[in-house]
Amino acid sequence: MRFIILILFTLNLTAQNDAQVISEIYKNSLLNGKSYDWLDYLSNEIGGRLSGSVNAERAVKWTKSEMELMGLDSVWLQPVMVPKWVRGAPEFAYIERAPGITTNVNICALGGSVSTPLAGLKAQVIEVQSFEQLEKLGKDNINGKIVFYNRPMDPTLIDTFKSYGGCVNQRYEGAVNAIKYGAVGVIVRSMNLAIDDLPHTGSMTYGNVPVSQRIPSAAISTKDAEILSEMLKINKEIKFYFKQNCKQMDDVLSHNVIGEISGSEFPDEYILVGGHLDSWDLGDGSHDDGAGCVQSMDVLRLLKLSGIKPKRSIRVVLFMNEENGLRGGRKYAEEAFRKGENHIFALESDAGAFTPRGFYFEADENNFAQIQSWKELFKPYLIHFFELGGSGADIGPLKTKNNVLSGLKPDSQRYFDHHHSSSDVFENIHKRELELGAATMTALIFLIDKYGLASKIKL
Amino acid sequence: MRFIILILFTLNLTAQNDAQVISEIYKNSLLNGKSYDWLDYLSNEIGGRLSGSVNAERAVKWTKSEMELMGLDSVWLQPVMVPKWVRGAPEFAYIERAPGITTNVNICALGGSVSTPLAGLKAQVIEVQSFEQLEKLGKDNINGKIVFYNRPMDPTLIDTFKSYGGCVNQRYEGAVNAIKYGAVGVIVRSMNLAIDDLPHTGSMTYGNVPVSQRIPSAAISTKDAEILSEMLKINKEIKFYFKQNCKQMDDVLSHNVIGEISGSEFPDEYILVGGHLDSWDLGDGSHDDGAGCVQSMDVLRLLKLSGIKPKRSIRVVLFMNEENGLRGGRKYAEEAFRKGENHIFALESDAGAFTPRGFYFEADENNFAQIQSWKELFKPYLIHFFELGGSGADIGPLKTKNNVLSGLKPDSQRYFDHHHSSSDVFENIHKRELELGAATMTALIFLIDKYGLASKIKL
Repeated sequence: MRFIILILFTLNLTAQNDAQVISEIYKNSLLNGKSYDWLDYLSNEIGGRLSGSVNAERAVKWTKSEMELMGLDSVWLQPVMVPKWVRGAPEFAYIERAPGITTNVNICALGGSVSTPLAGLKAQVIEVQSFEQLEKLGKDNINGKIVFYNRPMDPTLIDTFKSYGGCVNQRYEGAVNAIKYGAVGVIVRSMNLAIDDLPHTGSMTYGNVPVSQRIPSAAISTKDAEILSEMLKINKEIKFYFKQNCKQMDDVLSHNVIGEISGSEFPDEYILVGGHLDSWDLGDGSHDDGAGCVQSMDVLRLLKLSGIKPKRSIRVVLFMNEENGLRGGRKYAEEAFRKGENHIFALESDAGAFTPRGFYFEADENNFAQIQSWKELFKPYLIHFFELGGSGADIGPLKTKNNVLSGLKPDSQRYFDHHHSSSDVFENIHKRELELGAATMTALIFLIDKYGLASKIKL
Repeated sequence: MRFIILILFTLNLTAQNDAQVISEIYKNSLLNGKSYDWLDYLSNEIGGRLSGSVNAERAVKWTKSEMELMGLDSVWLQPVMVPKWVRGAPEFAYIERAPGITTNVNICALGGSVSTPLAGLKAQVIEVQSFEQLEKLGKDNINGKIVFYNRPMDPTLIDTFKSYGGCVNQRYEGAVNAIKYGAVGVIVRSMNLAIDDLPHTGSMTYGNVPVSQRIPSAAISTKDAEILSEMLKINKEIKFYFKQNCKQMDDVLSHNVIGEISGSEFPDEYILVGGHLDSWDLGDGSHDDGAGCVQSMDVLRLLKLSGIKPKRSIRVVLFMNEENGLRGGRKYAEEAFRKGENHIFALESDAGAFTPRGFYFEADENNFAQIQSWKELFKPYLIHFFELGGSGADIGPLKTKNNVLSGLKPDSQRYFDHHHSSSDVFENIHKRELELGAATMTALIFLIDKYGLASKIKL
């Protein structure tokens, strides 16, 4: 009986048009999606999973075993050496207005930072908004001090990723710039549009600065950044103390997790969907990027569940080490090019689990025009955003002249409340929003698989 | 100096095109919006404000005084008699599998329900999904029992308001239908897409049923609805006990709160923006509809702040008693028609404070075409939804042949998690999402004020 129903269902689907298939995909995700339960496990049973950590390895093993249960054609691990940085004991910091008169503030070490001396670091603070201002102040004003980068995210931009993009150089290159002028430490305002107590970590670089000259760097919560700034206006002589004992270890072996459905007609054309499996350590990495991983896994499951037999090979890839190295993304592309695997399309979900609004595309004119022609199919699901723009860090290395890369674009208003902080946790995930994202991704993959790329066909 | 800047600013604005004015409006809302602080006060200092309650009167006084501080041309209260229903002591309920073997469940009385007997009500339960099923079961199966309406909201609909619309007759008309077949009480599954412990209240009717024949009605949490349903599958003889001592009192005097900027060119053409000031009592009414009230107040403030001097008269109206009577909306329209006030446009925000997606419009072809022509202006703000559809309960009575009514349409995925429950509280409001809503409303009001209605011009 079940067999007959299945046959009828499949025959019926063949006759249906794209709109009906997409409707089926959304229904399956909202009724029978697995992304939420998977994310519950990944977030609550495993948790934060920084590259090289025990949790990262647990996440690799568990996602591989879940993929094996999905009945894919193949599932495997791709080895990759990753950096291992450990935070150590909780950080501690205060502002000292006068000896013994202190105000504790919330900080966290930036990923990749060196530790402070064992007893901590205390120095005067100089606040700047930009590297230009730093240069103007010069060595005379900066030498021996802690540089405090306090340029806030621009609240007037509608896309909060643009606000982030306008600030994140303070975090990433703050230390390497401050070192030039003799700074002894860096404190950076957290990349957060809300004013609250949470410090937000993230990666930083020392560039070519020798180990002996590196200075400790930490993020301070937005609320405490405002307090520090106010205090500095009253008294420039106040001191800032912070203590952290983070450490960069040797690289360790880790893995990208890969699953595949082989294409029935064009098995040598690959369509990739993925997210990154590693996360920062302060929360459980639910939005960044557990969501992208479970949505990507569910894309393959929802295709099956909706009776779709892909013509092309569909791969889900959970990349390791996006946050502090991008080693997984680079390794995957390196291997793909080495093997001559033709990746016609890659989609990454790495912008949170909020209500999906559409996609960014890296595509030529023909391909983009074809994709735009599908826009009407997404209208019933309130998916309206199809624009040219950056796709995703992990898939970036896969770009060729002809292929198309894409990034899911969810609503961005809440993302930086949680990003890289202790509030990036499962309770801040909304089940339906996550499922709508998975369905939207599946619908796009379905169309790309069915029609292939326009440029490839025409060229 | 301030005067000169203001003049320059105003001259400059006149030269700006619509896109620039709208950009200014959004910036002002995100940088200097007052909606979030106002809502903080309304929610946390006043709180839930059911019609006729002390809190409702506090809300009337406070919003009037805030409007007076805004420098509007006039602010006044419009008297309206409203129903007063009181919940009384917290409700209590359990499922009894056998004498003494009970499971407590979470319920709340529906607004307008009568109380149970003082000692509570205990009876067998009959579960139904629809009034049709109720009719088929008939008096033989229902007499003396509690009717349990358990049709869930449809999770496959993208617009959760449509799912709500497909279920809410169980809550509103459940009692009046069950009474026909001799039921002694009604338990209705909460209108909530999430499975959790929160009962969601809401209005209900007894129609023409005499007071002596009315039966107590309550909502049960979705999780407990599932438990009750499972238990009934195992044993149809289980009993349900509930106790509530809610009461309908005599009508009392309350008020709509109204503020106005008089139009400089067409003062007799009125543009209304509003929400409803009353709320259910379980939460603090932040989403429903504190948000709509503070956004509407901020529309007039943001117009001023953005240097716009309206040609037409702009009114903010905070309606009393949307939840359980709509007396405020009816009274306002009655007075408007009596005085011959020409309301060319009315906009209501009563669908939550989530990221705005667009508007529904009740409009004729000409007017709708004009509004559609403005769509491109909203694109930078990711506002994409301009569709014909219902506007808002409070403004509905203002509809005429020629005018246009509109309802703000925010993202709907999270709304029914909170709606009418104890989780409709300020901490579930997102500042930027609220402010984006206020800006989007202001931009539309700006365009309507500047261009008037198309139909009116052409007719």
